[in-house]
Amino acid sequence: MSNQPAQQPSADPLANKHQAWSALFSEPMSELVQRYTASVNFDKRLWQADIAGSLAHAEMLAAQHIIGAHDLADIQRGMAQIRAEIEEGRFEWKLALEDVHLNIEARLTALVGDAGKRLHTGRSRNDQVATDVRLWLRGEIDKLVQLMAAMQAALVELAAQHTETVMPGYTHMQVAQPVSFAHHLLAYVEMFARDAERLADVRKRVNVLPLGAAALAGTSYPLDRERVARTLGFDGVCQNSLDAVSDRDFAMEFTAAASICMVHVSRLAEEIVLWMSQNFGFIDLADRYCTGSSIMPQKRNPDVAELARGKSGRVVGHLMALITLMKGQPLTYNKDNQEDKEPLFDTVDTLADTLRIMAEMVGGITVKKEAMERAALKGYATATDLADYLVKKGLPFRDAHEVVAHAVKSAIARGIDLAELPLAELQALNPAVTADVAEVLTLRGSLNARRVLGGTAPVQVQAQVERHQRRLAAG
Amino acid sequence: MSNQPAQQPSADPLANKHQAWSALFSEPMSELVQRYTASVNFDKRLWQADIAGSLAHAEMLAAQHIIGAHDLADIQRGMAQIRAEIEEGRFEWKLALEDVHLNIEARLTALVGDAGKRLHTGRSRNDQVATDVRLWLRGEIDKLVQLMAAMQAALVELAAQHTETVMPGYTHMQVAQPVSFAHHLLAYVEMFARDAERLADVRKRVNVLPLGAAALAGTSYPLDRERVARTLGFDGVCQNSLDAVSDRDFAMEFTAAASICMVHVSRLAEEIVLWMSQNFGFIDLADRYCTGSSIMPQKRNPDVAELARGKSGRVVGHLMALITLMKGQPLTYNKDNQEDKEPLFDTVDTLADTLRIMAEMVGGITVKKEAMERAALKGYATATDLADYLVKKGLPFRDAHEVVAHAVKSAIARGIDLAELPLAELQALNPAVTADVAEVLTLRGSLNARRVLGGTAPVQVQAQVERHQRRLAAG
Amino acid sequence: MSNQPAQQPSADPLANKHQAWSALFSEPMSELVQRYTASVNFDKRLWQADIAGSLAHAEMLAAQHIIGAHDLADIQRGMAQIRAEIEEGRFEWKLALEDVHLNIEARLTALVGDAGKRLHTGRSRNDQVATDVRLWLRGEIDKLVQLMAAMQAALVELAAQHTETVMPGYTHMQVAQPVSFAHHLLAYVEMFARDAERLADVRKRVNVLPLGAAALAGTSYPLDRERVARTLGFDGVCQNSLDAVSDRDFAMEFTAAASICMVHVSRLAEEIVLWMSQNFGFIDLADRYCTGSSIMPQKRNPDVAELARGKSGRVVGHLMALITLMKGQPLTYNKDNQEDKEPLFDTVDTLADTLRIMAEMVGGITVKKEAMERAALKGYATATDLADYLVKKGLPFRDAHEVVAHAVKSAIARGIDLAELPLAELQALNPAVTADVAEVLTLRGSLNARRVLGGTAPVQVQAQVERHQRRLAAG
Amino acid sequence: MSNQPAQQPSADPLANKHQAWSALFSEPMSELVQRYTASVNFDKRLWQADIAGSLAHAEMLAAQHIIGAHDLADIQRGMAQIRAEIEEGRFEWKLALEDVHLNIEARLTALVGDAGKRLHTGRSRNDQVATDVRLWLRGEIDKLVQLMAAMQAALVELAAQHTETVMPGYTHMQVAQPVSFAHHLLAYVEMFARDAERLADVRKRVNVLPLGAAALAGTSYPLDRERVARTLGFDGVCQNSLDAVSDRDFAMEFTAAASICMVHVSRLAEEIVLWMSQNFGFIDLADRYCTGSSIMPQKRNPDVAELARGKSGRVVGHLMALITLMKGQPLTYNKDNQEDKEPLFDTVDTLADTLRIMAEMVGGITVKKEAMERAALKGYATATDLADYLVKKGLPFRDAHEVVAHAVKSAIARGIDLAELPLAELQALNPAVTADVAEVLTLRGSLNARRVLGGTAPVQVQAQVERHQRRLAAG
Repeated sequence: MSNQPAQQPSADPLANKHQAWSALFSEPMSELVQRYTASVNFDKRLWQADIAGSLAHAEMLAAQHIIGAHDLADIQRGMAQIRAEIEEGRFEWKLALEDVHLNIEARLTALVGDAGKRLHTGRSRNDQVATDVRLWLRGEIDKLVQLMAAMQAALVELAAQHTETVMPGYTHMQVAQPVSFAHHLLAYVEMFARDAERLADVRKRVNVLPLGAAALAGTSYPLDRERVARTLGFDGVCQNSLDAVSDRDFAMEFTAAASICMVHVSRLAEEIVLWMSQNFGFIDLADRYCTGSSIMPQKRNPDVAELARGKSGRVVGHLMALITLMKGQPLTYNKDNQEDKEPLFDTVDTLADTLRIMAEMVGGITVKKEAMERAALKGYATATDLADYLVKKGLPFRDAHEVVAHAVKSAIARGIDLAELPLAELQALNPAVTADVAEVLTLRGSLNARRVLGGTAPVQVQAQVERHQRRLAAG
Repeated sequence: MSNQPAQQPSADPLANKHQAWSALFSEPMSELVQRYTASVNFDKRLWQADIAGSLAHAEMLAAQHIIGAHDLADIQRGMAQIRAEIEEGRFEWKLALEDVHLNIEARLTALVGDAGKRLHTGRSRNDQVATDVRLWLRGEIDKLVQLMAAMQAALVELAAQHTETVMPGYTHMQVAQPVSFAHHLLAYVEMFARDAERLADVRKRVNVLPLGAAALAGTSYPLDRERVARTLGFDGVCQNSLDAVSDRDFAMEFTAAASICMVHVSRLAEEIVLWMSQNFGFIDLADRYCTGSSIMPQKRNPDVAELARGKSGRVVGHLMALITLMKGQPLTYNKDNQEDKEPLFDTVDTLADTLRIMAEMVGGITVKKEAMERAALKGYATATDLADYLVKKGLPFRDAHEVVAHAVKSAIARGIDLAELPLAELQALNPAVTADVAEVLTLRGSLNARRVLGGTAPVQVQAQVERHQRRLAAG
Repeated sequence: MSNQPAQQPSADPLANKHQAWSALFSEPMSELVQRYTASVNFDKRLWQADIAGSLAHAEMLAAQHIIGAHDLADIQRGMAQIRAEIEEGRFEWKLALEDVHLNIEARLTALVGDAGKRLHTGRSRNDQVATDVRLWLRGEIDKLVQLMAAMQAALVELAAQHTETVMPGYTHMQVAQPVSFAHHLLAYVEMFARDAERLADVRKRVNVLPLGAAALAGTSYPLDRERVARTLGFDGVCQNSLDAVSDRDFAMEFTAAASICMVHVSRLAEEIVLWMSQNFGFIDLADRYCTGSSIMPQKRNPDVAELARGKSGRVVGHLMALITLMKGQPLTYNKDNQEDKEPLFDTVDTLADTLRIMAEMVGGITVKKEAMERAALKGYATATDLADYLVKKGLPFRDAHEVVAHAVKSAIARGIDLAELPLAELQALNPAVTADVAEVLTLRGSLNARRVLGGTAPVQVQAQVERHQRRLAAG
Repeated sequence: MSNQPAQQPSADPLANKHQAWSALFSEPMSELVQRYTASVNFDKRLWQADIAGSLAHAEMLAAQHIIGAHDLADIQRGMAQIRAEIEEGRFEWKLALEDVHLNIEARLTALVGDAGKRLHTGRSRNDQVATDVRLWLRGEIDKLVQLMAAMQAALVELAAQHTETVMPGYTHMQVAQPVSFAHHLLAYVEMFARDAERLADVRKRVNVLPLGAAALAGTSYPLDRERVARTLGFDGVCQNSLDAVSDRDFAMEFTAAASICMVHVSRLAEEIVLWMSQNFGFIDLADRYCTGSSIMPQKRNPDVAELARGKSGRVVGHLMALITLMKGQPLTYNKDNQEDKEPLFDTVDTLADTLRIMAEMVGGITVKKEAMERAALKGYATATDLADYLVKKGLPFRDAHEVVAHAVKSAIARGIDLAELPLAELQALNPAVTADVAEVLTLRGSLNARRVLGGTAPVQVQAQVERHQRRLAAG
């Protein structure tokens, strides 16, 4: 690459972007169009990725002798200053320069002259923006995985105190069988653990380098794409330049994973709202997570949980927006793709904020054990245990089921629990019943019996708490 | 209502919102919670509706003797000042005051004292926010209907110049039959006319007053809700207070109508992109609606159309967000509902911007008549006319269809159009063909023949142009 | 139109559809393709609309002398037989004939010969299918509006018995203020009334005739489209043939309206599930709407309500499918459009079944008044009333609010309701309190006070019940 | 486990399911309810998974001495017969038995008596259905991955013949730079390869065993869950019973992956439709993948591609349905979950059919090389190459860009390509131009220059073809 771009300084081509294509264009972009098409207002948050990507590109260009060592030095110096300007809030973002890339490049050229103009050699904005978004998203995924771990840790910590706390387990919102409150909390730990695993899978497909695809077809400059990938910590390079500039799978896949996580958040939030309701009264939330009412002096509302539940809709909407956006687009880059950013950015922000605040709030839960236990006594939650007892005494399960239904009917009629039915009455229903039935009909007896792997017996649940603690510590 | 609130001035209850419910709350809201739950950053755009609603409420309170005439005067004076402060950018929006309502009310109280505190009599934020959003949305709908009319007018104006311009009509993207370009444009006029009609229907359900529902159950103050409705131009009042504070149908319905309109925009944008492509070359767009490439010197890209197409995904996403949000919420107001605003606001902005820019851009279209006509000659577009000709000569349609298929096959083999086949050859296929077939095989002959109501014959299309012009002029 | 199609009988062109286009096609459709593209398995449900549309078209063709009177008679006779065959399950639907239209047309030609072949004069499947779907959907809308009325009637009937039944009104799932159970039910009546109104608006845009648009461009036959519209009961005719064959707005709009209705169903279902839960215990459902468990002998699950809630997702999914389908399609008819039917059909079925079963189930609700009233006593629901009382005694609302907060705090500490606080204690908090406070603190006192239009006072609610009864009777 | 269920035969409890819970239920399920809640019409397709799961469960029960060896033998014998009955179409599915599980279990009990009744020991339908769906989906994923490989193979095979075929590469649907047609096809290979990778990740989370969770809380029987997992080929067991019965993440995640794949299908279909259009004329499709028109004798429509594009909406709708379904559900099993099946089943069917038919159709593509090449000559596709040429001659890129813009302008004015501009004219624009520019301005010169990894140079593309061939052969 002996023929270096000429050394004489030239006018800044980006000072007025629209002069850049002036020979063919007879009039400037209308102001409305400029506003409609500009992205700098939202894509400027990619600035760190943009600078990192440019530096890696420049280093490679120099190593390949496509630009000179002094060009690289100039670019590095200029970028250092730009970084400082942005961090200190002194950088002037210009709508007329359309996006984060041109804003930074124009400033670089203003600062260091021709070297700045050489930076764009062998790349285009099409591969540059794809690189920036992937770099940025990779970093966000890493933070989100940490937040998911924190969420799990908060749940495990609360669970550790409540392996022996009994609450009603529900199916169909009807009391089904007693369960350990810790067991219930650990169900959510499983969900958030899967979410983190899912993000790790997404990350593999995010962490591939598009740079070098140029506008769409690759470039005639002898780039070393693998070197750039190594510098930036990418796992590999995109193998097809057309795919590299048009692929937004990673955005859809990430947002789908985020939507599933928000579904989990929403389920937990729904339960917190219910548990806080006077009709349950299972928990209380620390005042700092509640709001009152300026009208109703008695109110303490679980606003945070409700809002988290509501925000699931927002993320799901972003997923739909991205899929609708990509559906049916011919190759390669179309301007439609610019619309990928706002949904993606807001998904990251919403998920991060929500995980953070939910994890904090879980730490502010006060458990009302007695209320939980009282509720577990309401719905004849040990009826299955009575049936199992009769089966073990030799009855076919179906007959046992029928005997218990009669017992429940009798208890309902008298407004008492199964455990309160006199032994004689149970024996009248079936003579196999003996005094040892008493233990079976207690909540704790029921709980302890479910000792199968993954079951609700406190001994099992305790083992799970410890497994999660080890796993998260190893993190 | 002789018992007026006491006259002695009291401390500003909203100066620190969290002291307002202090007796029950032992700690302030955490900062993270405050940021997560506050809406003032986006709902401040409702300020005009909020002030209008408050003034109408205050006038009614005074008319009902619930507050005094001097209170009303104070409130009016304070609101006038607040309006000025906001318009001049001097109003200080405080995150700690959570939303637009508390920000304005707190400022009012600071300005006029006790009268400000009396304003909230008989209402709550639950009915207030519902009123504000409906008022605001009604105004936006009226603007959007105007923009839809402007969009139609731009299309009709272009159509008026092209009733005789022939282009290929497509089904399955295959050339089907020749159509008038004006006819094609008027298809979109029908769509945007339906969109406007649809918004008018939505407006009926938006324009109903919730105020008076208070927190959820109505109020014990003798409000005159119908008076407030009249003052604010509402068509009626919500008849059920629980529904009034929890209903967000109007937001879903509006966003659904907006989504359908964006589907139309997207279809038109898709066609503009195709027509601009070198493979079609049917139109050119004024430079001010195009962008170039800093890499590829020859490029002129229809960015605006592509972006408009992409933005349909965004609006559809908002629709999904709103539906997901509302699905399964028990009555009445839940904090989830706060999430209705951002999707709604962005839907309004996106739709308005897009309609405005698309209408402008349609005015910047240059039609390349020859290219359109040339393309219409490519796909044997008059084959149906030949078949109809044979039917009129007495052949059963099915036989005619087969004869034409053979003619097409022969023309394909020789790389010529049907009109270029020698008469003798057509006669060899079927002796019923005579010299008058020539006219039938021309594009214009085909066009003129389709004279049925709604058909593509220029005389029909011209009549439609005039109908639309009259309709739009009548407004 | 003197040149009638030739009189000699010709071979049935549809006997093997693929020979119909044989001159150009060198091989038949592959079997996989045939299965993939055929729609007769689902679109055969349009048969009644298809026959009605054909008959109206034939009558007009005859009136316009495009076909002869004997042709019309043949067609009418043939269609009568086909109708009978289908109703009696004797009609043989053939996948090879692709769709409902070709199946019926082929059978007609088999039955009546050439007249059958003349039926398709001046129309194409593109305008035919659009006509069929609109005709069919119009009929379904009329049935759905009836089902929505039945749903409202069931709710009003239950409400009529419970204007005086007190339940806790919730915001944020926290007890807020006591409300009448009838008032709560009537909130849903408002929702379903809006749904019916919305469908009536959709109907206007469904009920427009596409027939006469032919393939896309209109036809050269002198059709009288307005006559066909009158015969079929359409309000008007599509004014643009390109729009006529490509428009699917009505499907999107209908499904959006159905989605909103399903959101209402889902909200009601959510409440029924909660009310049935032991933690609420507000209602019981008749056994015929419940399922048990073959494992847990005590279970009675509100399956129907849960499933109805779940089915809202299904309808929303169909809306999404339709929007995604139409987004960005160039004009005019594309095969994509065939995918409009299954979502539309399933939306109609799901909504109809769900409304029917929910209305029935509402009739099977047993209200547990005491449980509702007991729950209303739990959350200090009359706190606002105490504050209002103090305001009327002259306190500024803010001070009153604070006094009440202290009273609530004290009541919480002692585990009693506000009404149970000794008068002396209330007076210690504020001396303005006198013995008349007792009435204010009762649930009924609170209820009766909210007498504003739309409020929860039984007298107001009774008036609303009567308004709805009159409205529904007027139909 | 010495207390075996009693040996005397008992009445078939499932003969009439509703008697099963009769003691508590005073009336049978209404017929409408039965129809609304039954799932057997669609879930019977799970029968193989249901039988496999039951056999694994039975083997483990026998190994754990929970049932006897003769019971196991009876169950195995009964299941063998049921399998035969279903395969031969002789099995009578009964709506009254609600779902696939009860239908099979009832038949088993009818066939083998008490052993059939013992099969359900230690499990419930909640964990049974979750197991069935996971087993079934795992199998379908494996088939889909094969279909994705076949799709890739078809594309690679076509690509192998076209590494040297030049077509215009587009950005913004504007001709950008020439690319190899093989390169374009391989972009889709990358997409479908990612889809397969994504499904493999989903499979990991599908392939975990819920069985043993029983209704929700685990069971008191000493099950060996890991043994069942091994028998059925699961990678592990669900560690939390509440999560096991309520988790539907795998359904959402699978459908999201399917949606992304359908987006790829839709993009490819869109291009095929465009390429087939007369305005492109890049390819032809074998007749067996086309349909004609019974009206327009010349039509050959790419129905399959259009329908595939349309079916993407369907799958996206199912994703939306599933997310909406799960959002906000409290734990554990709710009947809403039954609605997971139809969207999942239809997603699998649609994706499988579509991949199969698209892969076949790709094999039926005829490439029109000359048309592609001619189109590549239209949009000044080598303008970037001319600019790069000038840069290598020493011009700053910006100046080079401007020179080329002038050259393009001049060529446009004269209606010729850049390569046709006389050397003298180019030299007049810039004296650095010499005769060697000719090669640079050819399509092939441009193509060959882009030799970077992933670029469009035929030598690079050929290497990619071989890489994919090796990869796909390795399977």
